[in-house]
Amino acid sequence: MEEFEEFEYQPKSVKEIFIEMKNIVELMVDLAYTAILFGDKEIAEEVLDLEERMDLLNYHLMTHAVLAARNPKEAEQITSVLQMANSIEDISNAAGDLAKMVLEGVELHPVITEAIMESEEVIAKVPVSADSVIVGKTLGELDLATNTGVWIIAVKRGKRWIFAPDKDFKIKPGDILIGRGTHTSVEHLKEIARGIIRVVGDERA
Amino acid sequence: MEEFEEFEYQPKSVKEIFIEMKNIVELMVDLAYTAILFGDKEIAEEVLDLEERMDLLNYHLMTHAVLAARNPKEAEQITSVLQMANSIEDISNAAGDLAKMVLEGVELHPVITEAIMESEEVIAKVPVSADSVIVGKTLGELDLATNTGVWIIAVKRGKRWIFAPDKDFKIKPGDILIGRGTHTSVEHLKEIARGIIRVVGDERA
Repeated sequence: MEEFEEFEYQPKSVKEIFIEMKNIVELMVDLAYTAILFGDKEIAEEVLDLEERMDLLNYHLMTHAVLAARNPKEAEQITSVLQMANSIEDISNAAGDLAKMVLEGVELHPVITEAIMESEEVIAKVPVSADSVIVGKTLGELDLATNTGVWIIAVKRGKRWIFAPDKDFKIKPGDILIGRGTHTSVEHLKEIARGIIRVVGDERA
Repeated sequence: MEEFEEFEYQPKSVKEIFIEMKNIVELMVDLAYTAILFGDKEIAEEVLDLEERMDLLNYHLMTHAVLAARNPKEAEQITSVLQMANSIEDISNAAGDLAKMVLEGVELHPVITEAIMESEEVIAKVPVSADSVIVGKTLGELDLATNTGVWIIAVKRGKRWIFAPDKDFKIKPGDILIGRGTHTSVEHLKEIARGIIRVVGDERA
């Protein structure tokens, strides 16, 4: 999802389409909350781009699916896939609605950002200092989701956003990681990124 | 902010209601996928119970909110809370629809469980053996979300389900934890729960 060319559709199996839809919808919800929290229109735009991608995926899923049913049992199974895809698209639309609030410049009530900051899973900006042990490592090597409990949603590098960075993404000093996790896990990652804590997980990094 | 003082006269503040809605909707989506993955009607019922709770919370939010607006700026801010609450309720309804698929006994296509098992964040059953270092510890002491990257959604103890167990929940041998995390983090927790890995996180547990 880093570059625009990835938005071009490649023929895929029902399963691949379905997995992509599930991954995208989770990213969309995270990004929608992030856009609201930071009042960031660029992130909100990304959510709407992903919503379009979701529509396309759902369309392709349907065309694949209707071709696949060859008997009543298969028809019922295929229908279950379409039902679930519809629910996923409903969630995607809800995330899109949240993003539109940011794009429309609605005056947000302070409880909204407070709620995002104080719920069980929170979203936080984690600036990476030059001293941190994570500098120069890839997200794949670091596996921050396992080693710190923080899921990296996006990274801001200079003026550029990288959404859903992949395992080959290498962290540079000055990067701002956007992560989702518990309060404790986010604070822990912040100390690692500041260079105060010098190990990541069981020193597996 | 004046409206906060107003809210203090109510049993719950708009903020508290809103945080609960956000926490519940995340739990609902996780539980809906869990119910589908394991074909478990009891979990699906819990999702529908939470959907009812969500409706009630949204109703209370609205009654609180409309009382709070006393000028156009406050009205716009309050409207933003209601808009966001509606999006959260849309997600809650989508989770409810997923749960209904399980309750209606729809014949599910195998790609559905495969997709849940193979997406970036997965859901897994983690049985706890008597040898494990986590036995006898509370979820608060263990902080598995931070120390292993696995978010505990529910626990099956004998025939009983405990949904969204809190920090005082003490793990017993034979418990089956239902966790959400990456493949790596879930496998790591499984080894801890099996008694193979003897430390949790940086031995902070």
